[in-house]
Amino acid sequence: MTDFLRIAGAQVDLTVGDLDGNTEIIRQAMTWAEECEADVLLLPELAITGYPPEDLVLRDAFVTANIAALHRLAEHSGSTTTVVGFVDRSSLPPDDAGHIRVHNAAALLQAGRVRGIYHKCRLPNYGVFDEDRYFSPGLKPGALWEINGVVVGVSVCEDIWVPDGPPAVQAAAGADILLNINGSPYHRGKSAERAAMLSTRARAAGVPVVYLNLVGGQDELVFDGGSMVFDSEGALLYRAPLFAEERFWIDVPLPAEGRTGVEATVVSSGDLLEGDPEPPPPTHEPLDDIAEVYQALVCGLRGYTRKNGFKGVVIGLSGGIDSALTATIAADALGPDWVWGVTMPSRYSSPGSVDDSRALATNLGIRFDEIPIEPPFVGFLDTLGPVFAGSASDVTEENLQARIRGAILMALSNKFGTMVVATGNKSEMSVGYSTIYGDMVGGYSVLIDVWKTLVYDLARWRNRDGEVIPQATMDKPPSAELRPGQLDTDSLPPYPVLDQILQAYIEMDQSIAQIVNDGFDRALVERITRLVDRNEYKRRQAAPGVRITTKALGRDRRLPITNRFHG
Amino acid sequence: MTDFLRIAGAQVDLTVGDLDGNTEIIRQAMTWAEECEADVLLLPELAITGYPPEDLVLRDAFVTANIAALHRLAEHSGSTTTVVGFVDRSSLPPDDAGHIRVHNAAALLQAGRVRGIYHKCRLPNYGVFDEDRYFSPGLKPGALWEINGVVVGVSVCEDIWVPDGPPAVQAAAGADILLNINGSPYHRGKSAERAAMLSTRARAAGVPVVYLNLVGGQDELVFDGGSMVFDSEGALLYRAPLFAEERFWIDVPLPAEGRTGVEATVVSSGDLLEGDPEPPPPTHEPLDDIAEVYQALVCGLRGYTRKNGFKGVVIGLSGGIDSALTATIAADALGPDWVWGVTMPSRYSSPGSVDDSRALATNLGIRFDEIPIEPPFVGFLDTLGPVFAGSASDVTEENLQARIRGAILMALSNKFGTMVVATGNKSEMSVGYSTIYGDMVGGYSVLIDVWKTLVYDLARWRNRDGEVIPQATMDKPPSAELRPGQLDTDSLPPYPVLDQILQAYIEMDQSIAQIVNDGFDRALVERITRLVDRNEYKRRQAAPGVRITTKALGRDRRLPITNRFHG
Repeated sequence: MTDFLRIAGAQVDLTVGDLDGNTEIIRQAMTWAEECEADVLLLPELAITGYPPEDLVLRDAFVTANIAALHRLAEHSGSTTTVVGFVDRSSLPPDDAGHIRVHNAAALLQAGRVRGIYHKCRLPNYGVFDEDRYFSPGLKPGALWEINGVVVGVSVCEDIWVPDGPPAVQAAAGADILLNINGSPYHRGKSAERAAMLSTRARAAGVPVVYLNLVGGQDELVFDGGSMVFDSEGALLYRAPLFAEERFWIDVPLPAEGRTGVEATVVSSGDLLEGDPEPPPPTHEPLDDIAEVYQALVCGLRGYTRKNGFKGVVIGLSGGIDSALTATIAADALGPDWVWGVTMPSRYSSPGSVDDSRALATNLGIRFDEIPIEPPFVGFLDTLGPVFAGSASDVTEENLQARIRGAILMALSNKFGTMVVATGNKSEMSVGYSTIYGDMVGGYSVLIDVWKTLVYDLARWRNRDGEVIPQATMDKPPSAELRPGQLDTDSLPPYPVLDQILQAYIEMDQSIAQIVNDGFDRALVERITRLVDRNEYKRRQAAPGVRITTKALGRDRRLPITNRFHG
Repeated sequence: MTDFLRIAGAQVDLTVGDLDGNTEIIRQAMTWAEECEADVLLLPELAITGYPPEDLVLRDAFVTANIAALHRLAEHSGSTTTVVGFVDRSSLPPDDAGHIRVHNAAALLQAGRVRGIYHKCRLPNYGVFDEDRYFSPGLKPGALWEINGVVVGVSVCEDIWVPDGPPAVQAAAGADILLNINGSPYHRGKSAERAAMLSTRARAAGVPVVYLNLVGGQDELVFDGGSMVFDSEGALLYRAPLFAEERFWIDVPLPAEGRTGVEATVVSSGDLLEGDPEPPPPTHEPLDDIAEVYQALVCGLRGYTRKNGFKGVVIGLSGGIDSALTATIAADALGPDWVWGVTMPSRYSSPGSVDDSRALATNLGIRFDEIPIEPPFVGFLDTLGPVFAGSASDVTEENLQARIRGAILMALSNKFGTMVVATGNKSEMSVGYSTIYGDMVGGYSVLIDVWKTLVYDLARWRNRDGEVIPQATMDKPPSAELRPGQLDTDSLPPYPVLDQILQAYIEMDQSIAQIVNDGFDRALVERITRLVDRNEYKRRQAAPGVRITTKALGRDRRLPITNRFHG
C-alpha cells in the first residue's frame, strides 16, 4: 500500500478585477474538490484578483475587497484544503512613501477558516513583470504545513524557478511534497522549459512537485495552463491541456522512503484516503511549435474580446497574408458569425486584393463588405489642395489612404459595436512600416509579436488540411498597395533577412557590431536598426496585442522615444 | 578665517542615449570648473547616459559605450574633482536570468583617473520609476572620500529622500559635507518639497548639503533643475533657476566646530583655497504655483520637440481653450515662427470657432490656415452609405469629423515635417471625452496631465499682461462642436465638480465610497468613475505628454485594460 495525497487542480480562466466572478469560479471548484474527496485543491496565483492586477493593487479598496472575498471563500471550505492566491496586507511597517505594504500570497483554507498564509518570496521584476512595484517579498521561504499528516511546502510561481528558492528550502526542511501555484504567461516553447525545470526541481528535492497554472488571455498576456505533476524522481505523472480550462485530480504517491514527520503548522488533521492510488488521468501531449503559437494567438484574442464585452470584431482585409491570418485566427477564436471582413480598395489596389479577400471570407464563412476609399480620398485631396499646392505626391498621400481605411473601420466599430482588430506583424511594427492612425488602428492586435516569416509558417499550418487562406494570398509578394506597383522589398530586404536582423537586435539585444559579425551587411544593419530606433513613437501608440516571445514590443521592451543611442 | 570648499555645479540639459553629446557638455563644464578653481564639480545623475535610459541599460553595447565615455572624461580631469553619474558594471554575480548586474553610479574623476565610485543604494521603484528593473543597490552607503583634506559624502537622488539614507550614514561616519546628484523630475510643488527636505537633512546631519539636479524634458518627464545649497544649519545659501540651464560655483563654508578628519579614500590631495569665501551668487526665487506649471509645460514641449529633431509643430485650433493654450505654450517654447495653427471647420462649427482661432493666431504671430472638413466628410458618408443604410446618425458621425481633422493634421505633418501636438486635457482623457485617432492624434501632448480647471488658471495667468488667448475663447462654454449646439455639460458635470471627483479617484486612489462620503452625489461618482475605468484602452494609445503631477495618466498609473473592478 502506498500513501498518497489526492490533489485537485482547477486550471481556470479568471478575469482581472472581477472579484465576484472569480470568487464564484473558485467556490464551484471547491465544491467539486470536496466531491472528489481531494485532500488539497490548487487554484492559480492571485486567483481572487486575477493576474496581473497591476496598479489596482495600489487601491486600498481593491485590497480590502479581495481580502473580504478570501474570507467568504474560507467560510465555504470543508475538509479539502484549498490553496488559493490573493493579495495579503503585510504586518511590515508602511514603505517610505507611506503606502501599506502587501504580499503576493497563497492562503490555505480548510474547515471554514484561513489556516495558513504563505507570502511569495521571489518577486519577478523583469520583462513584463513589475512585482517589486507592488509587493513586499515574503520572509518565510521554508514555511511548512501539515495536511492530513503530510508535510507540504507551498510556493508561488517565480519561487520555483531558482534552484535555491523556497521549494528547495522547504524540501530541505522536510516537505513531503511541493505545491506551486502560478500565473505564468506563455512564450514560445515555455511549456517545455517549465517541464524540464520542474522535473529537475522534483528530482533535486526528492519529493513530488505539483504545478498549477492559470489559463486565458489578459491584455497582452496569454496564460497557457499546462499544469503538471511530477513524481519524486522527476517523472511526469500528468499534464493538463494547454490554452484550455481543466479540472483534474490525481493521487500523488508520497516518497517511498517514508514521510519526514517534521513539525509543521497543522492545516487539516484528517486522514489520508486508504487503499491504492487511482492511476493518473490521461495526460495531454504538448503541442507542436507552430500549433502552440497559433493556439496562443487564438486564446489571447478570445480573452481580450470576450472579457472586454465585445461580441464581434471587424478586420480590414487587404488581400495580403497578415489580414488573412488575422481574420482566420479571429474566426477560430470567436466563430465566423462574429467576424466581419471589409475590403477597402483604392485606385492603387490590385484586382486580386478584393478577389482574394472575398475568397478568404467565403472560406471562413464570415460577413464581407466592400467599401471603396475613393470618395473620402478625393475629398481630402480637394480640401488639402490649396495648402499642398506646388508639392509633389509623396508618402503623405500613401498614409492618407491608410488613415481613411482606419477611419472607416473605426466608423463600423462605433456604429455596430464591434472591435477593430489590427493586423500589423512584428517585422513591420519594428521598422515602422505601418501608418499610425491608419493600418495601426484597433483595440487589439493579433500578430504584433509575430515575425513575418512566422506569419507564413502559421498560415501554412492553418492550411494543412485544405485551403483556408487563398493560395494567391500566400504566393503574392508582400505589398502595402499604396502606390502603383509598390512592393515591401522596394524599401526592405527580404523578410527572412530582415527578421534575423530584427530578432538579433530586438529579442537578443545584440549590438550592430555583433550582428555584422554574424555575417550581415553593415549598411543594411545600420539602416534597419535605425528604423527600429526611430519608430519607437509609433509603437508607443500601438494597440496592445498577444505576446508570444520573451521580448514583445510592449512592456517587455521599454525604450525611451527620445533617444540618440545607436549601437 | 573660515575653511570652505569651492563647489561648482553644472545644471545641464542632457539627452538620453546621446553619449557623445552629453560627454562633450560634461567636458566643457570640467574645463570651466578648472578655470573657476573649484575643488569639486557636480554633474547630474546618469549624466553620461541621460536620464532615464530605461531598457537601453539592458543593452551591453550601451553600458560598454557609457563606461568608455567615462574613461575619456577621466583623462580630461585635472585638479577639480568631478562627480558625474554613469552606469557601472557590478562585481556581483549575474542575476537569475544570467544578466550582468549594473549600478546607478557616481564616479569621482581627478587628475586623469577614476578615483572612486559610489553606487546608489536606494532605488526608486514606484510612480514613473523602475530602477529595480535595471540596477542593483549599492552596498556601501557610508563610503567617504577625502577631497583636499575635506571628508565628503556622495550620494545619488533617492538616497537623500529617506531620513536614514546614505547621506545620514555618511554624516554619522564623519562627512564634513554631503553632495547629492540628481535626475529628479518635476511635479507641481516639488521644488518646495525638496527645499524643506534638504534643509531638514542638512540640519540633522549638521553639515552642508549640495543638491545638483538635471534640467530639461525627456519624453513625459520634465527635470526642473533648481539645484540648491544648504549650510550646516539648514539655511539656503543658493538656488539655481528652475527650468533653465545654469553653471554656478559657491564657496561652501565647512562646519564651524572643525572637520572630523576621519579616514576616507583619498580622491584629491590638493589644498583648499585660502582667504575668506566669496559670497554666494545671487539666488533664484522659486516660481509661483501657476507660473511653475506653465514653465514645466514649456520646458517639456521644447525638450521633446528639439531632441526629436522637429523644427516646428502644427496644432488644430478649435476656438476652444485647450487648443488655444496649447498653441500659446508652443509659441513660447519654440518661437511663433515654428508654430502652425489650423482651423478645420465643419457644418456644425460656430462662426466663433474660426474667428477666435484666427484672433489667437494673430495675437501669437503664428501661421494660420483654414482647411474645411466638409469634402472628406461627404466622401465618408457617401462610401459608408450602403453599410450604414437604415441606421440613425450617432456618435459615429461625430467621431468621423474628429478623425478627419486628425488625418488632415497628420497629412500636414507628413508633407511638411512638423509634429502634431495633441490638445486634450487630463479631465477629458480621464473620462474618455476624446476621439481616439481623432483629436487624440499627435506626437506629444502638452495638457494631458492638466485638469480642465487648471487649463483656465494657466490661460488667465498667461493673459496677465494683456490678451493673448482671446477673451471669447476664455468665456465660451466648453464644446466639442460635433453636433449642433453641443456642450460638454450635456454629458459631464461642470468641470470644477468633475475635476474634484477625478482628482480623488485618480490622483488619490480614493474609493467611490470615500468620494461619496466627501459629499458628492453617488450616481454621479459611479458614472464618472466608470467612464474612467472604461476608457483605459484609449489612454493606452495616447501620445505621451508632459507630466506635472505625481499621478499622470501614463506610466505613473499602470492599470489593466481588461478590468472589472469598480470600487
